[in-house]
Amino acid sequence: MNFLDDYWLRPDPTDPRLSVAVTGRNEAGETIETRVTVERPLTLFLNAREIVTMMTIGDYPEYLALGYLLNQNMLTPQTPVTGIEYDDDLGVVVVRTATETNFEEKLKKKIMTSGCAQGTIFGDLMDIIENARLPPTPVRTSSLYALSHKINQTPSLYLESGAIHGCILAEADRPLVYLEDVGRHNAVDKIAGYMQKHGVDPANKIFYTTGRLTSEMVIKTVRMGIPVLVSRSGFTAWGVELARKAGLTLIGRARGKRFVVLAGDDRLIYDQDLAYVAEESAKHRRKGSKHEDAGA
Amino acid sequence: MNFLDDYWLRPDPTDPRLSVAVTGRNEAGETIETRVTVERPLTLFLNAREIVTMMTIGDYPEYLALGYLLNQNMLTPQTPVTGIEYDDDLGVVVVRTATETNFEEKLKKKIMTSGCAQGTIFGDLMDIIENARLPPTPVRTSSLYALSHKINQTPSLYLESGAIHGCILAEADRPLVYLEDVGRHNAVDKIAGYMQKHGVDPANKIFYTTGRLTSEMVIKTVRMGIPVLVSRSGFTAWGVELARKAGLTLIGRARGKRFVVLAGDDRLIYDQDLAYVAEESAKHRRKGSKHEDAGA
Repeated sequence: MNFLDDYWLRPDPTDPRLSVAVTGRNEAGETIETRVTVERPLTLFLNAREIVTMMTIGDYPEYLALGYLLNQNMLTPQTPVTGIEYDDDLGVVVVRTATETNFEEKLKKKIMTSGCAQGTIFGDLMDIIENARLPPTPVRTSSLYALSHKINQTPSLYLESGAIHGCILAEADRPLVYLEDVGRHNAVDKIAGYMQKHGVDPANKIFYTTGRLTSEMVIKTVRMGIPVLVSRSGFTAWGVELARKAGLTLIGRARGKRFVVLAGDDRLIYDQDLAYVAEESAKHRRKGSKHEDAGA
Repeated sequence: MNFLDDYWLRPDPTDPRLSVAVTGRNEAGETIETRVTVERPLTLFLNAREIVTMMTIGDYPEYLALGYLLNQNMLTPQTPVTGIEYDDDLGVVVVRTATETNFEEKLKKKIMTSGCAQGTIFGDLMDIIENARLPPTPVRTSSLYALSHKINQTPSLYLESGAIHGCILAEADRPLVYLEDVGRHNAVDKIAGYMQKHGVDPANKIFYTTGRLTSEMVIKTVRMGIPVLVSRSGFTAWGVELARKAGLTLIGRARGKRFVVLAGDDRLIYDQDLAYVAEESAKHRRKGSKHEDAGA
């Protein structure tokens, strides 16, 4: 498991704040103890303006706050952020900019909930699709299989307690940043916040999500400047349409040996001997099958 | 497949409006044609007030509109609804009441998106948990297994094109109303709208969802007055807590032979010979595995 050392950031399923033990019964009527994922409210302020209350596992409120504002187009990557303050007791995070932004009025307070995650201001965001300039970074299918294998073997809350989404920022076959949350949009936004904070170059990256390939997921990936989006899950028609318009490579239903690419297949280099993958696939499936679709 | 005749309403995966054929490539680089789920915007008005724009597959806008308003506590089951008008071209649905309701001001316009579905006004909704009076309807484990088997064998968009959630209203081992949508909350809300419209008694029903057992899902089930909530997916800690408070039976990770009950286990009657289920389980799994977690 040396690949675990390649991660810049990965889940800590042993963090006692992220899941709790509960007692119940199984199918045989036996008393069992199991772990379930925690969700807690986090209220985000941009300067003095209350923006939104989100349900989150609460592990990286600063990344979530920054990434949310970026992905909602309420901050641009160029906006100077002078500070991010988090109050654990209050469940409040405040993002401060040098001057008031003109985005603060754009969103009224919305109560957000897990599974629901975040609404999106589509008007603004469609510009992101229209103006997309994604680099022609090639993607080897051998890298995709190796990447999936590593992700499936990475200890995570998903494997520990289920009912959670995961997003992974990767480069070729190396997963680099793996973040989870109860809503899949929170997980994406935390990645965006991480990339902004640490100045990560998106051009040679791959974005992997456990969630479905909807219009929102496509828009966020394009906004982050990442040219390739991969998921175990399926597509929506609008997601496919936007990916094609933006020149994003969109790969879905990626399980074991199988995958389908519905946009941007010009980036793919088919260098994997599929006979070999078939054998590994069963192994992956067992590894990941404890809560097979709990987080999808 | 005689059980299909027991349905009051079930998916029509042959409806050409609900999915589109797209061309792509598979893992071997071969050109393939596959179907993907359609999502389209639907703007909901309560009388003259614009409430929300949702992304939906668009099959039952009237049920979705009515159920949304009920589940958001913007209408009570007692509010007289004088009409529901749907304009397909505009993508607008209007719910009319005899007099203006005091709920119309409660929600500001929110742009909702698939995967995101709906925010919730928690303040109001917590009263629903506090005041819950769910009936002690017994549930036989043999019924649960028979029910899952029938659901897995019912033709659906999930089996056809994936990336969709399903909710099923059932009585004992009989699925009665099976509705799907791109957001799981839309699917729940359509069930709520159906129940209201047709005066369905919730007391002896079971609610089955492909989605996770979060606080919102628990609140909606309790509001509908249904005493049992079942899912293939996992739990969140708050979902479990609210279910226990409300006296809701909460069953999750229900796959093949396995399940876990984390609240309200007093309703369960363990009458199923598990040795028999084990054999059926593999069969179910194959049936449902085309897009195993695409909609979860």
